[in-house]
Amino acid sequence: MKAVCLLSGGLDSSTCLGVARREGFECYALSFDYGQRHRIEIRAAASVAGHFGVRAHKVVQIDLRAFGGSALTADIAVPKDSLKHDGTQGIPITYVPARNTIFLSYAMAWAEVLESSDIFIGVNAIDYSGYPDCRPEFIVAFEHMANLATKAGVEGRTLLRIHTPLAQLDKAGIVKLAAAVGVDFGLTHSCYDPDREGRPCGHCDSCLLRLKGFREAGLQDPLRYA
Amino acid sequence: MKAVCLLSGGLDSSTCLGVARREGFECYALSFDYGQRHRIEIRAAASVAGHFGVRAHKVVQIDLRAFGGSALTADIAVPKDSLKHDGTQGIPITYVPARNTIFLSYAMAWAEVLESSDIFIGVNAIDYSGYPDCRPEFIVAFEHMANLATKAGVEGRTLLRIHTPLAQLDKAGIVKLAAAVGVDFGLTHSCYDPDREGRPCGHCDSCLLRLKGFREAGLQDPLRYA
Repeated sequence: MKAVCLLSGGLDSSTCLGVARREGFECYALSFDYGQRHRIEIRAAASVAGHFGVRAHKVVQIDLRAFGGSALTADIAVPKDSLKHDGTQGIPITYVPARNTIFLSYAMAWAEVLESSDIFIGVNAIDYSGYPDCRPEFIVAFEHMANLATKAGVEGRTLLRIHTPLAQLDKAGIVKLAAAVGVDFGLTHSCYDPDREGRPCGHCDSCLLRLKGFREAGLQDPLRYA
Repeated sequence: MKAVCLLSGGLDSSTCLGVARREGFECYALSFDYGQRHRIEIRAAASVAGHFGVRAHKVVQIDLRAFGGSALTADIAVPKDSLKHDGTQGIPITYVPARNTIFLSYAMAWAEVLESSDIFIGVNAIDYSGYPDCRPEFIVAFEHMANLATKAGVEGRTLLRIHTPLAQLDKAGIVKLAAAVGVDFGLTHSCYDPDREGRPCGHCDSCLLRLKGFREAGLQDPLRYA
């Protein structure tokens, strides 16, 4: 069975791909180059895709900078040393409008062409950093919409299923699962604001969350921080 | 009030933009360059946007050819002289996987940045040529999903509304509405397979449907056919 796996090259999506492989899917990895500050993310995705022996890895150029509105795509400073991940602090400036909706829409297009009815995405509802489009109710609504949008839905074939194996895990749980499914942590990249050599900053939300996850899982992060 | 209006430069989307203007919206027109065979569509969209005095017109490059699977994006012949538009003939080869989902996802991103809660799309359920993502139930599901995906939904602000003013019109009804809201028919472009000079073929589904609409509305199409 074929599955389309969204892959940023970060810890979560790499773990998600590992889970899909362990479940026996032939994986088609899908990454996006959306004018993010760090193309290093794309290279990490390619390495992780290679490590897990995917059948194909596509990198789709999308132009989210055209609209602005996020620290990750516009010229706004990434916040440092201010980890807020319990969802009560409002939506962070690193939120990219409609990002997961756009990513899942492309995944849906590829799945339809591949005649696959399985998409994997590494969202989680615990350490979700306040992003609205990581919530389980969003995923359920997307799945419902997708099944009305596609040939498969109309023709009564197998319905599209969006798998979110990390949904109920905290970051420590994800680190443990990653180890169990064989993620090579050294290939992954999580930092929003790496230095010129590509080393993670250790201070952005994403680094703080990753480091907290390793600490709580009792494992060592092999990455060298700046 | 601001509205994001999806605009292909065809008769339907141009009419939809005209309706949004007539309802008093400040319009932000959004077009896509998705490797379609005829860039002439983009030029038509720009002309129509100018005619209606939009506040901005963005053309986003998207790479639907990466996945293939449609006569409009891959190297598959466009069917001629075989109009089937009652939804009972299956899904035509000109269907582009996930197209409207991807288009609406980008519209949603722009609307969020503009703090607009209105999107216009010229789908219709009558002459919908069998595309699953033109059905009213798809639009309702997308709207529901969008309101779970965005800041506005989470923060309890005005919810996103997707306007489909053509939903219940047949092609003749659209031609009449177009005339009423001031569409300049000569600027619009509907053909899937124009000749080298950009003249419409008069034989693809889209041309046949357009000509039928004009005929039944008792109006003359000013376009010069090949």
